[in-house]
Parts: sequence; structure tokens; C-alpha cells
Amino acid sequence: MIDRFFERFIMAQSSTFMIPAEKLAVLIDTHNMDHAKLLLSHITYSRVPVVTQEGKFFGTIGLTEITKYQLENGLRDEDLNKDIAEIVKTDVRRVTENYQLEQIMRDLTEEPFLPVVTEDGSFKGIITRKALLSALTNLLHSVNMNED
Amino acid sequence: MIDRFFERFIMAQSSTFMIPAEKLAVLIDTHNMDHAKLLLSHITYSRVPVVTQEGKFFGTIGLTEITKYQLENGLRDEDLNKDIAEIVKTDVRRVTENYQLEQIMRDLTEEPFLPVVTEDGSFKGIITRKALLSALTNLLHSVNMNED
Repeated sequence: MIDRFFERFIMAQSSTFMIPAEKLAVLIDTHNMDHAKLLLSHITYSRVPVVTQEGKFFGTIGLTEITKYQLENGLRDEDLNKDIAEIVKTDVRRVTENYQLEQIMRDLTEEPFLPVVTEDGSFKGIITRKALLSALTNLLHSVNMNED
Repeated sequence: MIDRFFERFIMAQSSTFMIPAEKLAVLIDTHNMDHAKLLLSHITYSRVPVVTQEGKFFGTIGLTEITKYQLENGLRDEDLNKDIAEIVKTDVRRVTENYQLEQIMRDLTEEPFLPVVTEDGSFKGIITRKALLSALTNLLHSVNMNED
């Protein structure tokens, strides 16, 4: 169990945790692999969320999946006119909007970011390790244990 | 300033922070780009450290740099027989072995991992956001603020 004082302090900053979907580079599951490759080679994130055309969270994709697919199948860039759905990583941890601190701390130890979804699976945004680490840094700077 | 009690608690776990060089996938600056591409498409890390043949830290590389280079120059995989040194990201924050918690918390908010180097630049290993987050999770589970 996380100490309640810590939990309250950190969760008071929770409005800053999530980067909303509209501020993110997001791909659609029917996008072509060559489109995804071009996007991923021009942004600083190595992995982006993938949603369906209805806005449901589908998975994540990085250059790793595309490069691996291309190497394994001996495909040139001009052959990459296939939907990314085929190679998207779908076994991805996700949280709903009423997540607990305990859960995101555990999951963000394993994943660099967590997709936030509604009960019906609509994609709302992501919580990053970076955002959580910022909140924890604030905590360590603000609390005084009066020890010495 | 980070509270001293917190600092001591977290730094007591600092022996677990660094993943030593010998346990990492590391590339040499004279490796070919096609070798780097193959390695990066088969590991879970999206970015790896690059060192010189003398073991000095040189920078980091991910599929992003290789893909971008390939797309911009219209190169096929068989043309990727060049040293990675040309495209390695070299403006990378690094720390020495006697780092302060304050410093790694600030730098790991910006970077997913930090190379640890000796005074003469020899590469020792990396400290990851994941490792720091684990130590912080331990802190939040172990300390009781006795508030309620």
C-alpha cells in the first residue's frame, strides 16, 4: 500500500498526468505501413498509439515492428502498402480514467507509457513515465521529513 | 533540494540503479548501419548506447536515425554498409559514477536512460527511468507518514 499522504499529494497533480489524444501523434489501424514508417522516422517518440476509425484504442506501433516485418518478408518500401493492423502490438497494458496511483506506478515500471481508455474502450490519451516522474520529483522537493 | 531522508532512502538502493555495460546490447561506432538495423529490430529497447573501440561512450542510436537516413538518401538495405558514427545521436546527457539523486531525477525526466561514464569518458552502464521509478515505488510503499 502506498502511504495515503503521498497518494493524495501525487494524485492532486493527476490533471497533469495525461497527455490528451488530440495533442498526440496517433495512427489509425487502417493506415498503410509506409505512412506509419514516415511518421515514426520524423518524431521523437519511438512508439505511438493506434486507434480504430471509431476512436477505440487498438494498440501501439514503433519502427521495430515495421523494420522487423520488412526484413522478415524481404519487402522494399514500395511494397509497404498494407494496413498496419497486421503488425500492431495489441497486448498492451491500459488504464481507465479512474485509475489508482498504485496501478500506474506498477504498470509504468514495465511500460514507458499507458493508454487511458473509457469503459467502452475509447482512447482518451496516455500517461507517461516522464509525467509520473515529474510528480514524484515535486513530492521529494516539497515534503520535509524534519529529520535533520 | 530533495529532503535528506528521501535522498538517503533512495540512494541506499543505488547499487540497483545501473545496468552494467556487459549486460547491455551495445554498438561500436564503426559498426555498419545494416548490422545496427538488424540488432535494433530484434531487441525490445528502441535505443542503445554506442561506444568506441576503446570503450569510451560515443552516443546512442535507434531505428529512427537509420530509417530517416535511409529515406532521405533513398538507400536500400544493401547500401547500408556505412559506419553508424555518421548518424549516432551524440548530444546525450550523461552522468559520472558519483552522481547526485537531484541530477538523475531531473535528467531522467527528459531522457529515458542516462549513460554512466568515468571521468575519462569510459562507458560503465546506464541508469533507466524504470530503475529510478522502482526505487521511488519502494519509497512510497515503505515510508509511513502516520497521517491517518
